[in-house]
Amino acid sequence: MIERYRRPEMALLWSDRTRFLVWLKVEKAVLQALAKKGDLPAAAWKALSPGLQKIENLGIDPLDVAEKEKTLKHDVIAFTAVVTEMLGRHGGEKAASSARFFHFGLTSSDVVDTAFSMIIHDAGQLIQKQVDALIKVLGRMAKRYKHLPTIGRTHGMYAEPTSFGLKFLGWEAEWIRNRERWSRAVDEISYGKLSGAVGASPHWDPAFEAGVLEKLGLKREPVSTQVVPRDRHAVVLTTLAVMGGSMERIAIELRHLQRSEVGEVREGFSSGQKGSSAMPHKQNPISSENLTGCARLLRSYALAGLENIALWHERDISHSSVERVVFPDAFQLMDYALARLIQVLESLTVFEDQVQANLDHAGPRVFSGHLLLALVREGV
Amino acid sequence: MIERYRRPEMALLWSDRTRFLVWLKVEKAVLQALAKKGDLPAAAWKALSPGLQKIENLGIDPLDVAEKEKTLKHDVIAFTAVVTEMLGRHGGEKAASSARFFHFGLTSSDVVDTAFSMIIHDAGQLIQKQVDALIKVLGRMAKRYKHLPTIGRTHGMYAEPTSFGLKFLGWEAEWIRNRERWSRAVDEISYGKLSGAVGASPHWDPAFEAGVLEKLGLKREPVSTQVVPRDRHAVVLTTLAVMGGSMERIAIELRHLQRSEVGEVREGFSSGQKGSSAMPHKQNPISSENLTGCARLLRSYALAGLENIALWHERDISHSSVERVVFPDAFQLMDYALARLIQVLESLTVFEDQVQANLDHAGPRVFSGHLLLALVREGV
Amino acid sequence: MIERYRRPEMALLWSDRTRFLVWLKVEKAVLQALAKKGDLPAAAWKALSPGLQKIENLGIDPLDVAEKEKTLKHDVIAFTAVVTEMLGRHGGEKAASSARFFHFGLTSSDVVDTAFSMIIHDAGQLIQKQVDALIKVLGRMAKRYKHLPTIGRTHGMYAEPTSFGLKFLGWEAEWIRNRERWSRAVDEISYGKLSGAVGASPHWDPAFEAGVLEKLGLKREPVSTQVVPRDRHAVVLTTLAVMGGSMERIAIELRHLQRSEVGEVREGFSSGQKGSSAMPHKQNPISSENLTGCARLLRSYALAGLENIALWHERDISHSSVERVVFPDAFQLMDYALARLIQVLESLTVFEDQVQANLDHAGPRVFSGHLLLALVREGV
Amino acid sequence: MIERYRRPEMALLWSDRTRFLVWLKVEKAVLQALAKKGDLPAAAWKALSPGLQKIENLGIDPLDVAEKEKTLKHDVIAFTAVVTEMLGRHGGEKAASSARFFHFGLTSSDVVDTAFSMIIHDAGQLIQKQVDALIKVLGRMAKRYKHLPTIGRTHGMYAEPTSFGLKFLGWEAEWIRNRERWSRAVDEISYGKLSGAVGASPHWDPAFEAGVLEKLGLKREPVSTQVVPRDRHAVVLTTLAVMGGSMERIAIELRHLQRSEVGEVREGFSSGQKGSSAMPHKQNPISSENLTGCARLLRSYALAGLENIALWHERDISHSSVERVVFPDAFQLMDYALARLIQVLESLTVFEDQVQANLDHAGPRVFSGHLLLALVREGV
Repeated sequence: MIERYRRPEMALLWSDRTRFLVWLKVEKAVLQALAKKGDLPAAAWKALSPGLQKIENLGIDPLDVAEKEKTLKHDVIAFTAVVTEMLGRHGGEKAASSARFFHFGLTSSDVVDTAFSMIIHDAGQLIQKQVDALIKVLGRMAKRYKHLPTIGRTHGMYAEPTSFGLKFLGWEAEWIRNRERWSRAVDEISYGKLSGAVGASPHWDPAFEAGVLEKLGLKREPVSTQVVPRDRHAVVLTTLAVMGGSMERIAIELRHLQRSEVGEVREGFSSGQKGSSAMPHKQNPISSENLTGCARLLRSYALAGLENIALWHERDISHSSVERVVFPDAFQLMDYALARLIQVLESLTVFEDQVQANLDHAGPRVFSGHLLLALVREGV
Repeated sequence: MIERYRRPEMALLWSDRTRFLVWLKVEKAVLQALAKKGDLPAAAWKALSPGLQKIENLGIDPLDVAEKEKTLKHDVIAFTAVVTEMLGRHGGEKAASSARFFHFGLTSSDVVDTAFSMIIHDAGQLIQKQVDALIKVLGRMAKRYKHLPTIGRTHGMYAEPTSFGLKFLGWEAEWIRNRERWSRAVDEISYGKLSGAVGASPHWDPAFEAGVLEKLGLKREPVSTQVVPRDRHAVVLTTLAVMGGSMERIAIELRHLQRSEVGEVREGFSSGQKGSSAMPHKQNPISSENLTGCARLLRSYALAGLENIALWHERDISHSSVERVVFPDAFQLMDYALARLIQVLESLTVFEDQVQANLDHAGPRVFSGHLLLALVREGV
Repeated sequence: MIERYRRPEMALLWSDRTRFLVWLKVEKAVLQALAKKGDLPAAAWKALSPGLQKIENLGIDPLDVAEKEKTLKHDVIAFTAVVTEMLGRHGGEKAASSARFFHFGLTSSDVVDTAFSMIIHDAGQLIQKQVDALIKVLGRMAKRYKHLPTIGRTHGMYAEPTSFGLKFLGWEAEWIRNRERWSRAVDEISYGKLSGAVGASPHWDPAFEAGVLEKLGLKREPVSTQVVPRDRHAVVLTTLAVMGGSMERIAIELRHLQRSEVGEVREGFSSGQKGSSAMPHKQNPISSENLTGCARLLRSYALAGLENIALWHERDISHSSVERVVFPDAFQLMDYALARLIQVLESLTVFEDQVQANLDHAGPRVFSGHLLLALVREGV
Repeated sequence: MIERYRRPEMALLWSDRTRFLVWLKVEKAVLQALAKKGDLPAAAWKALSPGLQKIENLGIDPLDVAEKEKTLKHDVIAFTAVVTEMLGRHGGEKAASSARFFHFGLTSSDVVDTAFSMIIHDAGQLIQKQVDALIKVLGRMAKRYKHLPTIGRTHGMYAEPTSFGLKFLGWEAEWIRNRERWSRAVDEISYGKLSGAVGASPHWDPAFEAGVLEKLGLKREPVSTQVVPRDRHAVVLTTLAVMGGSMERIAIELRHLQRSEVGEVREGFSSGQKGSSAMPHKQNPISSENLTGCARLLRSYALAGLENIALWHERDISHSSVERVVFPDAFQLMDYALARLIQVLESLTVFEDQVQANLDHAGPRVFSGHLLLALVREGV
């Protein structure tokens, strides 16, 4: 995602640096468990453990991995090569001689997919927090404007009076649904796999796999191929797209309410902000417009994700280029958009007089529905 | 949906005839509850009730409604006009004179959206049944081929041996997830609304609304606008798209396994079926290919659904043309596709000798992973 | 496409009846050319020709083909079987004995794909005519409202004055572009192929193929596989999607101008038409809203079309289920939508007083841009 | 676009640095033309010109603009502020005092949209060059393998023999079409606008506008709103999506031909490259798989672009967030993907023996079509 649409905490989660660190955590957890189980010589684990800890503290330089990848053309192998070298450098001779055990019994996808789920899970928590915050703002505004009558509009036409607060209440209800959807989607993706090249788990049994994954905060994929099945990832992206639609619904309403002829609200205008280079008088709903565009992007990412489900046989790697782009993009964009939406709502000015004026303008004809009913009752 | 891709029971659910019947049920349920509550003169209900029952038994002719709609340009008003006339014809003079109470206190969307949820719910049950059947077939085949060793393939290349049954077991697991997703999606859409023109419920209180909806098998939309919010509908369509992807995953695998060089399976060929008009020797995986195409359609319908969430103000009607097309299409297509997939699986021939031959062909190099591990253990 | 959104002439083009008739034309053209070339015994052509003509006049009953397809599971083979039988019935004994030459040297796709291009071409002409009509209306309105000043709006906010006619002029320019795009897209699809099972044209040379196709109004696909390559079809569908977007742009503008607070235009309301079942006072922009939804559908169809390009090897048939649904749907919907759009524009009421009133309401601040310039000039 | 999928020349074009430089070019061209026309005092131009040239040589630091944007919340105003400051710093006192003329008579979109078209145009040329190169490779390979017989496959099943070179010839023909499509798409986007806040061109006449734009290598948008209409941009993105589909078609074929059971080709494997971390024996078609994923991304970007056409009134800015992301992403990805595809083709190993072996394996049954014809001829 471009810099403009990302925020530090979320961006860090999707950095190469974090990815390699999480890979390392997965590798370490496996080694530790193997040692405990006796499948890794105790001496080897003893030799490796402090070095791995040191590397974890130092972090792995993405440029080192990139450098190796240039010849190896395989990111995980490049990563293991870097770690192996670092073990030699930081872990001493013993670590170096045990370094061959690093990545023992694993296929790349065991590391990559498990780490991917961990990162999505963590990124999902950041989103969840923002959704919580959004729900709170919406609830607050629903209460604040509960008793402000406004003219309801259907087809963009005056219909019947309603409460201004009801708009916010409806969005709050929608985001409570989204919170539940998102929580389930994150739960659905919180699965890892350490079952080897084709998912047949030739090197250890499911209980071992489940134990390691539990330590990493994940559940064990019940039946994996080489990868965690991609329906899980598709659900994450389609859920973000639905949430994008809900965001767009709010944004469109705010844009309507802000238009010159309606004038019921105004997006917060920070002091110093300029509206237009040519027309100094204008204060435009650019945040709401921006969010409308974000929703389009989130829809498009979902689409790419849906095409990733049907991989060939025990997996092909066509999903990888898609996911390298779409997951960081979708999460960072949603993170940015939610923050911006919350800020828009928190600094929203509601011109109550204008709300009333529009209601007056709608006039008595908006009671035609009530009149109709009364006439029916009277037998007309 | 074109005739080729629909099945009778599902098609009936999406017919105009059914729609008008379900509209009638909604109208009737409201009238009955109003009478009970005293808001409709007891005499009026007594006068209307037998006539409505008779109309329900007879059904409403969609051509009659279409005829009226030509001048009125509004389907619900056309519908009420037809019912009003029918009340006169079938209900006698008293019914005719009480006919003005028909549609009392309701806005079109109260009827249309509530009925729409009822139909989606019922159509959802049909899909659910097929998903259950699919899971059963997959489970059966997983068991049947559990002990058939096969060569696992990643990137389309021989990787390591696995069990042929594991393919089915993985799909079974995915469809168990889909069953759960679908059940939730249907639950999410099982909401109706009778809250009037802008959702402000001016004519009765929420408890009344909830009571009527419960009789119709639905829950009450907690905060509606003129309509049931469209995030619910989007979730239904994106869930169908995810399920489409899962179906495609199976279809692609079957197409691969069936290709001439692989030859491990064959789609059931009914006697009399012709493979090719020019090449009589061919038996093509046309069902699996067909299902691959269906997945593309299901993705596209989801996309249209996602764009429907952000309606203007208390609703606009831009979603209507989309839903008139996409909901019948998506449900009928999924219904058709699931039936076809089940049939493909049930009549699938597995050439076990060829599975074994390919495994042999893969040769000992597929154990290079195990060799690597052994070498690592030995200190190389 | 559902009945509501289709018009007779276009619907006929996409009927099974038309399809079989066009198939017959292709088969007949090949036979005739083969006879001319001496590859079909002159006697056989003489025997077949009157029978084929008779069948062409009678038409082929889709139910007959459907009946045969039930056992044969192949539509082209079912079709040839029906024609063969009809030749026996209508062509006499000689025709019957030469009927084995029917479909001689052809693979199904030769017939299906060539006929498909012919139908798309013809349907494309219908669309083209409507686009022409639309451009005319837009041009007329641009002229009519050229001198009506209006307040231009950016971000939904009053910006600077402009001409009301400029809106129409801009749309006219856009549709002139669309006309050119569409004409090219139709040209791109006007290719057929008679090159056999894998495109290698084993039975005749390219000149023969080109000659037959020219008689059918098509050019020869320079390099086909079993099918005409699907990038051509994708271009047709993406072009329709772009045109859908242009339509949506007009529809959204009309909806905005029609909203209660703006009130500058009104969609034609036919006498007898009802606006709302609950609120008799309302006149809603339902046509423009309908068109907004149509644009969403057209986008979704394009998406499915884009996924059809990458067929396996010399073709697979996964595109077929998509195209059976999407082509008739996209063309019929566009045909319907264009007609509706033209009608909306032709019956559009422009409330010039209200246009002026809004301009007045915008007030002198809209000249802030000019003021800014003047100030710059003066050295401020 | 992530670093992994971008190449330097294209990346530079989409950098902030380039954007500001092109903005500067637009501003400068307008000022120069205004001076020539006498609308800008000659002295002012004389004072500004050397400073502007100096800034163009130095470049504008994106961080400076970003810093200003933090308070101003408007990128063009921030940019003009930076340029104004730089004029003071680098142009001397006279330039400083004339700096108020900078951006004279322009609205932000005049600069942004015109510059955007210029950048797309240049980026389009880079793509075009690669398409040319791709066509050359394909043509070369078509010739090289013209006389290598191979078994054609439809539905993944052996069909009839064809030429191995015909695969490449078909792709070449498709890319010749794509070249033409792309050239038109780039032509369609090569339009700028300097017509002010709502397109009404209040400050100068169309001829002036056309003259400036011609100097910048663009044509004048015949009817603009505040922006160049977005159907043009949508065509660029849908064309990239179609090209993505064509790329995917090649990639899928190469993946099929490379699979273990087929073994007819192999992607170039550079020395040092590793196939799999767990299975050292494997050489996977990872480039072709990568390209398959790229096609999915390109489809998704098109979708977002299609939603951008229908802006509100004389423009809203919802398209902006989409375009900031999607245009750099789509162009950089296509640039990367084409380069990778060309490399895959150039280093492709074709195992001619295996091609022959598969043809043999297909056996005489593949002539069943010819046999059928012979039988028909003989009267069977």
